[in-house]
Amino acid sequence: MVNMKDVAREAGVGLGTVSRVLNKNGPVKEATRLKVERAIETLKYKPNEVARNFKMQQSQSVALIVPTIWHPFFSNFAYHLEKKLSENGYKMILCNSQSDVDKEINYISMLEKNKIDGLVAITYSYDLDQYISSDLPIVSIDRHFTEDVVYVTSDNESGGRIAADELMKRGCKEIAFLGSLSSIKNESMRRRQGFENEVKKHNFPHRILELEEPVHDIAGSVRQFFEEYPEVDGVFAMNDKWARIIIEELKAKGKKVPEDVQVIGYDGVTPSKEEELTFSTIKQPVPLMAEKATQALMQIIQDEPGEEKIILPVEFFAGNSTKKY
Amino acid sequence: MVNMKDVAREAGVGLGTVSRVLNKNGPVKEATRLKVERAIETLKYKPNEVARNFKMQQSQSVALIVPTIWHPFFSNFAYHLEKKLSENGYKMILCNSQSDVDKEINYISMLEKNKIDGLVAITYSYDLDQYISSDLPIVSIDRHFTEDVVYVTSDNESGGRIAADELMKRGCKEIAFLGSLSSIKNESMRRRQGFENEVKKHNFPHRILELEEPVHDIAGSVRQFFEEYPEVDGVFAMNDKWARIIIEELKAKGKKVPEDVQVIGYDGVTPSKEEELTFSTIKQPVPLMAEKATQALMQIIQDEPGEEKIILPVEFFAGNSTKKY
Repeated sequence: MVNMKDVAREAGVGLGTVSRVLNKNGPVKEATRLKVERAIETLKYKPNEVARNFKMQQSQSVALIVPTIWHPFFSNFAYHLEKKLSENGYKMILCNSQSDVDKEINYISMLEKNKIDGLVAITYSYDLDQYISSDLPIVSIDRHFTEDVVYVTSDNESGGRIAADELMKRGCKEIAFLGSLSSIKNESMRRRQGFENEVKKHNFPHRILELEEPVHDIAGSVRQFFEEYPEVDGVFAMNDKWARIIIEELKAKGKKVPEDVQVIGYDGVTPSKEEELTFSTIKQPVPLMAEKATQALMQIIQDEPGEEKIILPVEFFAGNSTKKY
Repeated sequence: MVNMKDVAREAGVGLGTVSRVLNKNGPVKEATRLKVERAIETLKYKPNEVARNFKMQQSQSVALIVPTIWHPFFSNFAYHLEKKLSENGYKMILCNSQSDVDKEINYISMLEKNKIDGLVAITYSYDLDQYISSDLPIVSIDRHFTEDVVYVTSDNESGGRIAADELMKRGCKEIAFLGSLSSIKNESMRRRQGFENEVKKHNFPHRILELEEPVHDIAGSVRQFFEEYPEVDGVFAMNDKWARIIIEELKAKGKKVPEDVQVIGYDGVTPSKEEELTFSTIKQPVPLMAEKATQALMQIIQDEPGEEKIILPVEFFAGNSTKKY
């Protein structure tokens, strides 16, 4: 039986291109489209049979690349993703890529060889763009690639704006963003942008501490920041990890949270299911992100049309690190 | 070429039995040993060639079953295990089993069909014993099975004793163990035993709160306990999750930690790599546990002799939830 790979080979294009032509989904050059249509005619290709056949060839496994699973946000996301993939009959291979781009490239190569069926990637590695192709079943979380790779992210820009608003309306006199900056374009830098846009709109006194990654001593940098700017009484931390470190550092210096300094994090993930959020934060909709990522990946694998940019809403959680409003 | 599975089939025994006969490792009945030796002779089996052949047939993947990856201890263990497996050329498939014994059985069945090469299991499911076989490459963390399955655990009994000693010598007047009890035999119940043995040895006033799992409202149970026993001024929590909930609950009730009540947890795992431990706890040697589990599994897969019970030392971390000594 003729399968989609035969069509791709006959037309001299990638699997993704054949998929886009069939589903009229995404951009394809006119000349390329003609090549694919000619191949389909030549081989007497029948999409439905092929889809079934294609499915039978699959390993029924999807790899998840995270910088490290030892992190509440990534472990929470992995928890929900594995659940959703499992409901779809897929096993999940876990890869901690931490500063090992070769490991990531290896998984992309497994994908090219059909040893795995799909890839969900949370990655900030430099230089990965050249290995990523929109022809492959990849869903990226938080990061844009040059190629048209589907991505899922929370609405970081809104998150930054909400955090600024919440600090301003809770009586802060000077507020700051504290975080780091990756050299790789990713959605999370919009947190700072949203924050900055909002405070500038209100002409509100503010500071921005944005350290270049990797930051080896977050606590030390936080300490130094507060020695330099002791008047800052409201902080938006780039994520909950930073927020936890900032809160510990303030306590160690005898400052009370939220009485002296109010702190808002970003992520909104507890260490485990049975625990409740304690400090104030911008909550990402992690179960929904995992669900949408799974759905998008299944659509690519099954050659169905789908969205390319999936941006999901966030909300403020009022915990014990901000004052009552 | 004859392989080990042929030998097992010819002898009418499992792969693990052939392995134990070849490596003179672990108990084998005399009659069984003779059957295996006869099969080896009949088939002119050559262990080295076979080992190579066997290796080539493998999927090069190992599954890790955890109750949930959304938990600092499990995510930390998974982080280190994936690293070690990766160094050995194995991918790691992650399975969150949470109250789904069928999912666990499915992985055991994949193992039997050689779809995966090994299994590392952290599981507390009832009724799993009948599916586990010492013939399979399985390493269990914290739990004993009826069959001779290799297990890796931290020294829970010592951990309980150390926690009791630390609370007693830090000026507590009445100390308590707070935790839950699974109906499945596992190593972590030795934490309570170690604690109890130590306080009894010293005739020290103590309380034990051991709730039957699953516990749906840990915070509520903790609240009730302190209403009933307000004199308790030192707590050993069964794990860090319990410790975090106890500390939050005490704070919410206006009690100061460690001034009014001292608290010691068990696990000693931070939410992420860059963070430091805050409260006092008994530290499990997680990287070493992952290393030993990987080593043990590789030994089983490669038919090399190895230990059956691997118990690793713990240590006390003096954090901000106990007084200075």
